[in-house]
Amino acid sequence: MVTWNNLDTLASYQELAKAETVKLAEVMTGENGADRVKKYSVPMAEGLVYNYAAKQVDDKVLELLGKLAEEAQLAEKFEALYNGEVINTGEKRLVLHHMTRGQLGDAVTADGVDKRTFYVAQQQKIADFAKKVHAGEIANAAGEKFTTVVQIGIGGSDLGPRAMYLALENWAKKNNTFKMEAKFISNVDPDDAAAVLNSIDVAHSLFILVSKSGTTLETLTNESFVKDALAKAGLDASRHMVAVTSETSPLAKSDDYLAAFFMDDYIGGRYSSTSAVGGAVLSLAFGPDVFAQFLDGAAEEDKLSKNKDVLQNPAMLDALIGVYERNVLGLLCTAVLPYSQALSRFPAHLQQLDMESNGKSVNRFGEPVDYVTGPVIFGEPGTNGQHSFYQLLHQGTDIVPLQFIGFKNNQCGSDVVIEDSTGQQKLCANVAAQIVAFACGKADENRNKNFEGGRPSSIIVGDQLTPGSLGALLAHYENKVMFQGFVWNVNSFDQEGVQLGKVLAKRVLAHQTDGALKVYSDLLNI
Amino acid sequence: MVTWNNLDTLASYQELAKAETVKLAEVMTGENGADRVKKYSVPMAEGLVYNYAAKQVDDKVLELLGKLAEEAQLAEKFEALYNGEVINTGEKRLVLHHMTRGQLGDAVTADGVDKRTFYVAQQQKIADFAKKVHAGEIANAAGEKFTTVVQIGIGGSDLGPRAMYLALENWAKKNNTFKMEAKFISNVDPDDAAAVLNSIDVAHSLFILVSKSGTTLETLTNESFVKDALAKAGLDASRHMVAVTSETSPLAKSDDYLAAFFMDDYIGGRYSSTSAVGGAVLSLAFGPDVFAQFLDGAAEEDKLSKNKDVLQNPAMLDALIGVYERNVLGLLCTAVLPYSQALSRFPAHLQQLDMESNGKSVNRFGEPVDYVTGPVIFGEPGTNGQHSFYQLLHQGTDIVPLQFIGFKNNQCGSDVVIEDSTGQQKLCANVAAQIVAFACGKADENRNKNFEGGRPSSIIVGDQLTPGSLGALLAHYENKVMFQGFVWNVNSFDQEGVQLGKVLAKRVLAHQTDGALKVYSDLLNI
Repeated sequence: MVTWNNLDTLASYQELAKAETVKLAEVMTGENGADRVKKYSVPMAEGLVYNYAAKQVDDKVLELLGKLAEEAQLAEKFEALYNGEVINTGEKRLVLHHMTRGQLGDAVTADGVDKRTFYVAQQQKIADFAKKVHAGEIANAAGEKFTTVVQIGIGGSDLGPRAMYLALENWAKKNNTFKMEAKFISNVDPDDAAAVLNSIDVAHSLFILVSKSGTTLETLTNESFVKDALAKAGLDASRHMVAVTSETSPLAKSDDYLAAFFMDDYIGGRYSSTSAVGGAVLSLAFGPDVFAQFLDGAAEEDKLSKNKDVLQNPAMLDALIGVYERNVLGLLCTAVLPYSQALSRFPAHLQQLDMESNGKSVNRFGEPVDYVTGPVIFGEPGTNGQHSFYQLLHQGTDIVPLQFIGFKNNQCGSDVVIEDSTGQQKLCANVAAQIVAFACGKADENRNKNFEGGRPSSIIVGDQLTPGSLGALLAHYENKVMFQGFVWNVNSFDQEGVQLGKVLAKRVLAHQTDGALKVYSDLLNI
Repeated sequence: MVTWNNLDTLASYQELAKAETVKLAEVMTGENGADRVKKYSVPMAEGLVYNYAAKQVDDKVLELLGKLAEEAQLAEKFEALYNGEVINTGEKRLVLHHMTRGQLGDAVTADGVDKRTFYVAQQQKIADFAKKVHAGEIANAAGEKFTTVVQIGIGGSDLGPRAMYLALENWAKKNNTFKMEAKFISNVDPDDAAAVLNSIDVAHSLFILVSKSGTTLETLTNESFVKDALAKAGLDASRHMVAVTSETSPLAKSDDYLAAFFMDDYIGGRYSSTSAVGGAVLSLAFGPDVFAQFLDGAAEEDKLSKNKDVLQNPAMLDALIGVYERNVLGLLCTAVLPYSQALSRFPAHLQQLDMESNGKSVNRFGEPVDYVTGPVIFGEPGTNGQHSFYQLLHQGTDIVPLQFIGFKNNQCGSDVVIEDSTGQQKLCANVAAQIVAFACGKADENRNKNFEGGRPSSIIVGDQLTPGSLGALLAHYENKVMFQGFVWNVNSFDQEGVQLGKVLAKRVLAHQTDGALKVYSDLLNI
């Protein structure tokens, strides 16, 4: 039986707060630094490694983080979650996204069905559908193959699947598993749909409408936009659209769609990349086998997250170091810096995943907490970021914890040698150099050229960004965010903070406004 | 004569720090809120309006901000800058990016030439070149027209021009001024160049190599990648490439390029969108007339930034409110939230502009400052962000100041009506609703559904995102960042914080490593 307590009531947290602060620039210099890089490293799934040598930790701090993990019952809470307890207390729901990629514990029955069976059945249904599309058995009215798939969705129905698609697009092209180009329409700004529709051949496009409730206003608006375009092209929309939705939604059994694939209330939008929400578009784009490899990578990483030994549990360790930085060291924000152009939108996905999950001020019981919770997350790929915002990261007045990601090999396999090194070598040399520059700094008499150092970072290193390693990377961050939510004692699985805006927007559209809202409405000509 | 003093030495700052804090939720409620929205508004160029009603200011705070502007000599410092003083003290350079779009004050001579004449001459040279390309007078070896332009550059040579291109792409298509598609290669990750080259027809592509020094390693690596691809296609690279560089760089007079357009040391990369760096790609993509409109919008906004009355100077006012939030109210970060899909990469550009300019810990004289300077900047377009990280913005434990941007009309001109409103109306209704939701909040007995409010935002509203309003928007932020740098007494025009990483990366590539750097190099297989 787990108990849910606020972070500041835990004895191990009080102890942690009193621990001596590690002087990063000192400990990372010389041979001691080399020893740390070798030692402070833990294997992840799919050959990835999480290295935290350049974080402000030492054996003592790590021991206290272990005690905190134990006292906060992190492993037990994860166990309760995957065994089907109502962890999402706000909405009174189970939290089952892990089950889309494997069975970590007990069978879980909900809505009268075994949920693992349900998720696997949806994957199978998608796989069959995708294969028929690729084979031309499901085709447009003229009997021609679909060449493009367009996802219509917003938030978790957009950011995760889009980031995953971009992460694997070039890998799939190189590995001959690229089946269809994917595009995404998300924003209610009509220019978004208009631009995407201008860029495709609608007659050979298949549209996936993604909305759990079937009532998301942005998504329904964009669906209507697409249906207009199909009608103008003289096409029957119902032959060009599929739905990803819940079984109880108005879309589930509509004749407007070629097929419907189901998700459920136990998977939040931001955790839905491994469900049908990501499954439909990724299986169509790259083939079901690639999607299955992605799931396997995530499942393998999930298993590691069960480990009670924090030093053998990369997601839990990453989570605890983040809590230590935020609540004890008082550091701000977290930057995610992948040295991989394919991960260009991965930080945007993590921004949602993390900030929507843990950007809360009340605990699971609705009581205000007296400590800071989820940080602001931002990031761009390196080396691009180095020529942009890194100036502040190196010499700004705030210290921002950093999370690097790097791969030994690129995806496309082509490269050039300039000044005796390849582009890939330059990319990797830069990430190695940045870690040390941030940690150790460099004294200079000219204070303008002086680097204080002491700026903590971690790195996840892999051989290559593949479907498997991408799945592992995604699961790592999902589980990190989950563990941090447990430590902060918040419900990471609801998002009440987005409701008020929706209510007020409806009022504006109905012209039921007064005060400031009315004047803003006038200003915007609504 | 201007004097440069630290913020905390200014009497007006001490007074500001003691001012009563405005209770935003209170003042924005009811008719008082409506009055504020009408009153706290200042016109910008090109029909834009900067509205700061939902910021934590009142007449008293505004009066004190005015005194601070005066004591910090903000208008005088701007005057010194555009009249050619050495404002970039770190690199001992003038700061002349405003002169690319107009003559704000005295003629400035440097390198033996009148600089305004120089910048205009480059624009004219680019315009002539672009017209010849569009007319097919400059064509590939087969005499066929170029259809695609590819910018090769990183940092300021990438983010600004890319954001501007995306901002105007659909506008240009709608207004029949779209000439050529533009693509961008920036990252040293070879997958970036490979993917772009895979997506284009190199035989009909013109490449713009952008590097002020002509020595940027990422850019030279990508140039080599492109030359390889041209050679493999049996094409003469020198008939497909132009350079944007300084007159003294090795690229300036090379036969490797069809043409060279010049920038100089008085324009930092992040301020170079209105120079040849943005000029070449935007003139080729949309025609020189569109680029000229963009410059005119920026020039018009620059003129407003000369105003000594802070209430009539939107950039100065925006800057001072930001300083008040950061240094007095202690708020973190700043989120930029454009309700326009066309501005999807505008926040990434502002992230560089702001964080690279003011992420500094020492003042202009190299002395450490005792107050926080530039904040972390991040953002994504609305309404997408509402379905993502807004949860933290509404209910997180940190308060993040917000900068909304919205337009009454979209660019593409197509729309649909769903539930009695268009997509554009929904977009605008949402931004209006968000401002009020953030400011006023809403009490709920269920604390999980409770909104404290008191979360400050401003909004810039325009009729439509056009070349002119985009120019004005860009200049507004450039000048805001400049004024904040003046207030913080930092040099906003150098970037020494990126040097150490470069030095260490070179050492890694030369295998001259020891300690942690060596082990990281091994880990990454360099």
